[in-house]
Amino acid sequence: MSQPRTETDSMGQVEVPSDRYWGAQTQRSIHNFPIGQDTFVWGRPIITALGILKKGAAQANAELGELPQDVADLIVRAADEVISGDLDEHFPLVVFQTGSGTQSNMNSNEVISNRAIELAGGELGSKTPVHPNDHVNRGQSSNDTFPTAMHIAVLLELRDRLEGAVGQLRDTLAAKSAEYADVVKVGRTHLQDATPITLGQEIGGWVAQLDYALGEVRHAAEGLHELAIGGTAVGTGLNAHPEFGALAARRMGEEAGLELRSADDKFAALSAHDALVQTSASLRTLAGALMKMANDVRWLASGPRNGIGELLIPENEPGSSIMPGKVNPTQSEAMTMVATRVFGNDATVGFAGSQGNFQLNVFKPVMVHAVLESIRLISDACLAFDVGCARGIEPNTERIEANLASNLMQVTALNPHIGYDKAAAIAKAAHRSGQTLREAALESGHLTAEEFDAWVVPLDMTHPRQA
Amino acid sequence: MSQPRTETDSMGQVEVPSDRYWGAQTQRSIHNFPIGQDTFVWGRPIITALGILKKGAAQANAELGELPQDVADLIVRAADEVISGDLDEHFPLVVFQTGSGTQSNMNSNEVISNRAIELAGGELGSKTPVHPNDHVNRGQSSNDTFPTAMHIAVLLELRDRLEGAVGQLRDTLAAKSAEYADVVKVGRTHLQDATPITLGQEIGGWVAQLDYALGEVRHAAEGLHELAIGGTAVGTGLNAHPEFGALAARRMGEEAGLELRSADDKFAALSAHDALVQTSASLRTLAGALMKMANDVRWLASGPRNGIGELLIPENEPGSSIMPGKVNPTQSEAMTMVATRVFGNDATVGFAGSQGNFQLNVFKPVMVHAVLESIRLISDACLAFDVGCARGIEPNTERIEANLASNLMQVTALNPHIGYDKAAAIAKAAHRSGQTLREAALESGHLTAEEFDAWVVPLDMTHPRQA
Amino acid sequence: MSQPRTETDSMGQVEVPSDRYWGAQTQRSIHNFPIGQDTFVWGRPIITALGILKKGAAQANAELGELPQDVADLIVRAADEVISGDLDEHFPLVVFQTGSGTQSNMNSNEVISNRAIELAGGELGSKTPVHPNDHVNRGQSSNDTFPTAMHIAVLLELRDRLEGAVGQLRDTLAAKSAEYADVVKVGRTHLQDATPITLGQEIGGWVAQLDYALGEVRHAAEGLHELAIGGTAVGTGLNAHPEFGALAARRMGEEAGLELRSADDKFAALSAHDALVQTSASLRTLAGALMKMANDVRWLASGPRNGIGELLIPENEPGSSIMPGKVNPTQSEAMTMVATRVFGNDATVGFAGSQGNFQLNVFKPVMVHAVLESIRLISDACLAFDVGCARGIEPNTERIEANLASNLMQVTALNPHIGYDKAAAIAKAAHRSGQTLREAALESGHLTAEEFDAWVVPLDMTHPRQA
Amino acid sequence: MSQPRTETDSMGQVEVPSDRYWGAQTQRSIHNFPIGQDTFVWGRPIITALGILKKGAAQANAELGELPQDVADLIVRAADEVISGDLDEHFPLVVFQTGSGTQSNMNSNEVISNRAIELAGGELGSKTPVHPNDHVNRGQSSNDTFPTAMHIAVLLELRDRLEGAVGQLRDTLAAKSAEYADVVKVGRTHLQDATPITLGQEIGGWVAQLDYALGEVRHAAEGLHELAIGGTAVGTGLNAHPEFGALAARRMGEEAGLELRSADDKFAALSAHDALVQTSASLRTLAGALMKMANDVRWLASGPRNGIGELLIPENEPGSSIMPGKVNPTQSEAMTMVATRVFGNDATVGFAGSQGNFQLNVFKPVMVHAVLESIRLISDACLAFDVGCARGIEPNTERIEANLASNLMQVTALNPHIGYDKAAAIAKAAHRSGQTLREAALESGHLTAEEFDAWVVPLDMTHPRQA
Repeated sequence: MSQPRTETDSMGQVEVPSDRYWGAQTQRSIHNFPIGQDTFVWGRPIITALGILKKGAAQANAELGELPQDVADLIVRAADEVISGDLDEHFPLVVFQTGSGTQSNMNSNEVISNRAIELAGGELGSKTPVHPNDHVNRGQSSNDTFPTAMHIAVLLELRDRLEGAVGQLRDTLAAKSAEYADVVKVGRTHLQDATPITLGQEIGGWVAQLDYALGEVRHAAEGLHELAIGGTAVGTGLNAHPEFGALAARRMGEEAGLELRSADDKFAALSAHDALVQTSASLRTLAGALMKMANDVRWLASGPRNGIGELLIPENEPGSSIMPGKVNPTQSEAMTMVATRVFGNDATVGFAGSQGNFQLNVFKPVMVHAVLESIRLISDACLAFDVGCARGIEPNTERIEANLASNLMQVTALNPHIGYDKAAAIAKAAHRSGQTLREAALESGHLTAEEFDAWVVPLDMTHPRQA
Repeated sequence: MSQPRTETDSMGQVEVPSDRYWGAQTQRSIHNFPIGQDTFVWGRPIITALGILKKGAAQANAELGELPQDVADLIVRAADEVISGDLDEHFPLVVFQTGSGTQSNMNSNEVISNRAIELAGGELGSKTPVHPNDHVNRGQSSNDTFPTAMHIAVLLELRDRLEGAVGQLRDTLAAKSAEYADVVKVGRTHLQDATPITLGQEIGGWVAQLDYALGEVRHAAEGLHELAIGGTAVGTGLNAHPEFGALAARRMGEEAGLELRSADDKFAALSAHDALVQTSASLRTLAGALMKMANDVRWLASGPRNGIGELLIPENEPGSSIMPGKVNPTQSEAMTMVATRVFGNDATVGFAGSQGNFQLNVFKPVMVHAVLESIRLISDACLAFDVGCARGIEPNTERIEANLASNLMQVTALNPHIGYDKAAAIAKAAHRSGQTLREAALESGHLTAEEFDAWVVPLDMTHPRQA
Repeated sequence: MSQPRTETDSMGQVEVPSDRYWGAQTQRSIHNFPIGQDTFVWGRPIITALGILKKGAAQANAELGELPQDVADLIVRAADEVISGDLDEHFPLVVFQTGSGTQSNMNSNEVISNRAIELAGGELGSKTPVHPNDHVNRGQSSNDTFPTAMHIAVLLELRDRLEGAVGQLRDTLAAKSAEYADVVKVGRTHLQDATPITLGQEIGGWVAQLDYALGEVRHAAEGLHELAIGGTAVGTGLNAHPEFGALAARRMGEEAGLELRSADDKFAALSAHDALVQTSASLRTLAGALMKMANDVRWLASGPRNGIGELLIPENEPGSSIMPGKVNPTQSEAMTMVATRVFGNDATVGFAGSQGNFQLNVFKPVMVHAVLESIRLISDACLAFDVGCARGIEPNTERIEANLASNLMQVTALNPHIGYDKAAAIAKAAHRSGQTLREAALESGHLTAEEFDAWVVPLDMTHPRQA
Repeated sequence: MSQPRTETDSMGQVEVPSDRYWGAQTQRSIHNFPIGQDTFVWGRPIITALGILKKGAAQANAELGELPQDVADLIVRAADEVISGDLDEHFPLVVFQTGSGTQSNMNSNEVISNRAIELAGGELGSKTPVHPNDHVNRGQSSNDTFPTAMHIAVLLELRDRLEGAVGQLRDTLAAKSAEYADVVKVGRTHLQDATPITLGQEIGGWVAQLDYALGEVRHAAEGLHELAIGGTAVGTGLNAHPEFGALAARRMGEEAGLELRSADDKFAALSAHDALVQTSASLRTLAGALMKMANDVRWLASGPRNGIGELLIPENEPGSSIMPGKVNPTQSEAMTMVATRVFGNDATVGFAGSQGNFQLNVFKPVMVHAVLESIRLISDACLAFDVGCARGIEPNTERIEANLASNLMQVTALNPHIGYDKAAAIAKAAHRSGQTLREAALESGHLTAEEFDAWVVPLDMTHPRQA
């Protein structure tokens, strides 16, 4: 690194690395917030969103006569580079900084300003012809820009990452559900043997949970389409053109491919992040559904000899460093660990979301970081689980049939014929004696062999009695 | 209490109090689960819902030819008494029992059976002419009835309790927002003085949060209209008439005044309670919004002399047992305590909701109890807050005006005219010297007195610049 | 109820029921806080603690010359009645009130004052000869008394309820661990078959967890022995005799049978409740240990035919309202539900504990209520689980032996002799072919039958190789 | 990267980069778990701990005659390089993998094996003369090694990072407390004006909280000194020398400078991580204490003109991108955001810790990761807060004195002289009229000017009345 460059802000001069576009405020933040710097630096989603934000704002300002077109064009060009990822190394800040995200907003202002200056042949740090505050941040405040970027970042990650990943796993499971629609097996309630179901029904229950949870995530995301932009410092829109918020939101939406709009109540949009809290909560529901599914898979695959053993899952790696030949349900384990992490992230988001005061909630960065992390982890885990486990799930037919044959809970089919009490006595007798249910039923004298065989048909028990 | 009565179930005989309608299984549960018996006995919501459930089921069974009409009529009469509250003392069980709620389902079966027998002039405990399992529980299992009752109970409480209570507070605040639309005051971000807002805007932000959160609760409640009924033991609908679930749901909906329907996927409906988890999460969002509002109220009312002091709130009680004359924001404190409780309840619900296995989630009672408690507490607290605080909120005009007059952040209005950097210098100068903003501005030489007076108009700063 | 009585406080007159000892402030609180009144009224633990508190304070004040002995004696007599439970119906207030618990402190001041007046033959409401503030509350403030009562209440419940209940279950399990020290069975890791353990070892692991968690609860409780008493309004001890805090704590400790002392830093004692947060967290750890145990029990008892089935647990009630003869692990389910509730309570406590401002944390009531509820639920559930499940746990010897015989993971015993890689190949071969491990081992040619029989001895595998 | 190298494990061959020491199982894990790879790769603490673990194990094995000395020496040399950080790029795995951490254990076995082979002049991948399982993992299983590494990693981070960082902030605050021991100011309870305290007392309350919380972290860490090592696969110690666990723990302790020992109950040590849960909970308490402190700081520093304004804090950066001259309490905001993250991490740890089954808890990686993250964030935030805020905290004397002069709550000093009721009337009169307390007191006629001046002395009110 060559000679550092001098940058200035309202507090004075700061030296910054000559090969970086950031300015004084970013440099101060690096200095003031050395907190978790190896893992909490913002990544692509927030940087992309800041780029989209600044581009849309410049376009709107130019259209409204608030910025000269040439200045806006320079900002747009620099912002496009931010969006593309070319300038990622110029965004060094971490999550734990000012609670309004001011410093990351200023990071984007400074980088875009300096890169735009460079494009115009100017001198870095000169703030001419593109000033970070007066031009790039025109009609904006951190208080409305950062929550705007938060929403855009989360929406893009939901659309571009989560939907595909969860959908892929969901589709695999739906196909498995159809494929095994006729595999009759023991149902289980309270972990105890219960009446029969099909494997297709069992897997279909997981699919239904994923569909519901994905629907809830999408519903929560609707609220994220409302942007704080236009609220400026406290929600009043001070210093912004009265049409700026709406127009800037539209331009950002065009860039992002999203139906973005300016929020109805900017005061709530700055001082609370309830749509983000709801999104986090819906991700928690999704994580809970994935946990149920992953737990079922590993319990159904438990064994090989002394567990339930009704499912076979892929063997991806040696299971044990001491027990040779052991194969473990590792994808289920990774998935359930992700679930506990998503629950924790949601606890953070809910807590932080409740802590706003007056015109601002100053827990913005930690909230959006946690939501983005949850999206990333769920997405990655679904893809890994799909490829490494779900696609390879197969019924252990031999075990399934043997289990079903020994199951006593087919006795339930007798209720409508001989009543609950007599049926209960038969099941208890079989349990005590070790007999099959048929043996105990005949011995009871309450029904004939023909009746038993006609009434107790496992496949018929997997749907309502025909009318 | 006279001589106990002997009741029987599939495990044998049990003595029950002669003046109670419950039977053997309820009695066993009393014996087996002495857990939190003073505060965790089910109350009206679940009892009502069980009554509605059993009534609708009997009606549907009769219509489908699954029950003799006279038996169904007896069940309906007894169920009506359950709904009305006349039989509440016959529901002694607590939340912490079987995780499927089987014993509370049986409690309702037994009470309705015995009360119906009594209405028919029969002998309590004889199970004739109305059998708790074969008749009252016809076409049902605890596994589909209890979650059905859970949904009905929560829906009724949301509609009959929460909507009115939160709505009442919301309307009071909306009226206050309108009333104080022209009271200009200091805005605050980062707890620091910021640009002006109106008190109406500030209160309006709370209203917007409540509206959003209530909307989310309503959305989540949509999922609760899908009932597990018809799924019986494991979701397959075994032993139920194929039309039973749909018809029973319709009849229950008629009784409850709700658009109830049988769930599309019964396997998910028994093994997961994701709509309840989402409802709980939405209540958490609502609690978070209420916490923000209550915190703002008490901070704005802090003082009387050494706090912010811009709001006056009612004095409802002496504030201190040692400091005479002290008045405290007690309604805010009760509200924020309720919020922390709702957060905890939601943690319970989210955790419990993730713990289903195979065809059943056996955390049903603890989940619905926590959701009902959250609804109750939020509702009660909103009513108390409305009557005891919100209605009496008034601006402390003198303080508001004095604060506004001394505020330096009106400097922001200068940005579009002289740029951020010069404006910052003026504000800093005033801060250092103790001058007013106007004094420092004029001293700076960057603008004239006329310009200052034209540009810095607090009321104008509470909305976007006119185009 | 006859003609109401007029009581007064610093805000004026209030009518109270003539048959109740409480005064104006209690009555105002009933009116102002109708929040969860059916389940959130304080119970014995807090009432007892308030009685102990007021008794000790009166004694200390008398000894220090701050109260006339006859006034102190009257207070002590009334406080003894509070402690005994005779006056419980005079404590009508709920948890959700002033966040300092002021109104419950005043409730005790008022009841004791009036009852003392009555004992002295005076007129209720006259505040003569015993004034609620000047005498009963002498040298105190709600801000130091309520947290003092919180600590005492929790300590008594820990000692008198939790210790015995958890200890009883722990001892049952320890006895079972000893009884089954020689029952060799399959171990399981990742839900998969693993190398053998004894049932005694398995149960002993649960005991070790309970011992650890109980130890942590006891450790956290040490911090509760430090009382806020003596801090009065803000922690400074204003208006209290300088020896009052220490002496009052000693007298309270004598009454309670606890080593109570006045806290070193009263400012922290009023504005934070970290020892209570730690106690709650330790109860969470205990709940987590109980959840692990209860889950193991129900999984090991799963079946009867298509689960793991290695443990037999008592059949306490019919398991299903539709599946005759089904027996469910209901005590495990109640226990795990309690665990989720304790986790939620802890979330409430942790959140509330972080929300103190300046000289006071105003989430006191909700915090202590949640901790007391957790103690009660854990205790009740442990007793129920002990009687209804743990004592009746027995090994299903037949199943255990069959499972062990088929287990492949005894292959691990071959590692030291033939190396991990060859051992792995043998296990995989057996798994593929369905052979026993012995058959596959001999077929591999890596060892002889004599070697196999000498090296693979399940009982030997349950402890380290002898040196 | 040149031609890849072929490595083998019990499942077959895998190609690995030629310039990396890892083997087949690590490579499989990279392939199977692409989950959060940019931020969830293990860092120094776990790598160091694995190095210490493997070194100590090799030393113990050699001493016990379980490993040839030359093989052990090679392992020790390679492990030393792992400890030093020289081999960090050879540890590519992420948190979300097998729940036992098997793959990270194998990563260390493979890297040490290959590096040791290289040191011995052998061929990478040949497993000769140092085999990853038979030698490096000798007497071990992932099930006992990974939790051993977890404990060591956390202990080192607590000792080498947390203690210093929190201690540094604590000492700064303690010095401030001493420095401002005589600055009398308004106390505040319920956010309302209360009786006076000194600034030293106020800050001292924070110090007391930090001291308590640090003590609890240290207490919880005691439990971490018990290591699972010696338990091998299921806790029985199968295949390990009977003295291995104790000796290996001692050797690891010597390397780490910690008093490490083998756990009493290895079954609990593998199947539960309650000491880690307690550590996490204690970190949550610490975070709660820091949140209280940081909140107090920013509220006390609120203003500059329309807040409380009694503290001055350093101005580290421009506060607003739109409001010129604004200075925000950014270090407090970073700290409180960290607190919410630590709360979320703790929710993850508590949840995960409850989910063990049988002989193993398979949420090990996510638990230790969350604890390490909490330690890191708290530590970093304390250092940043210390340097960027705490050291620069100064009283705003002018404001403090003005506030104190106007405060009405000095009335409390009158209680012992004229009684609570008359004192209350005086305070109320002053509040209504806007008078000073002295004016209202004299006007009441209850006391003389001389009495007032003798009785109401703010400094005297900051400690108990002299005896």
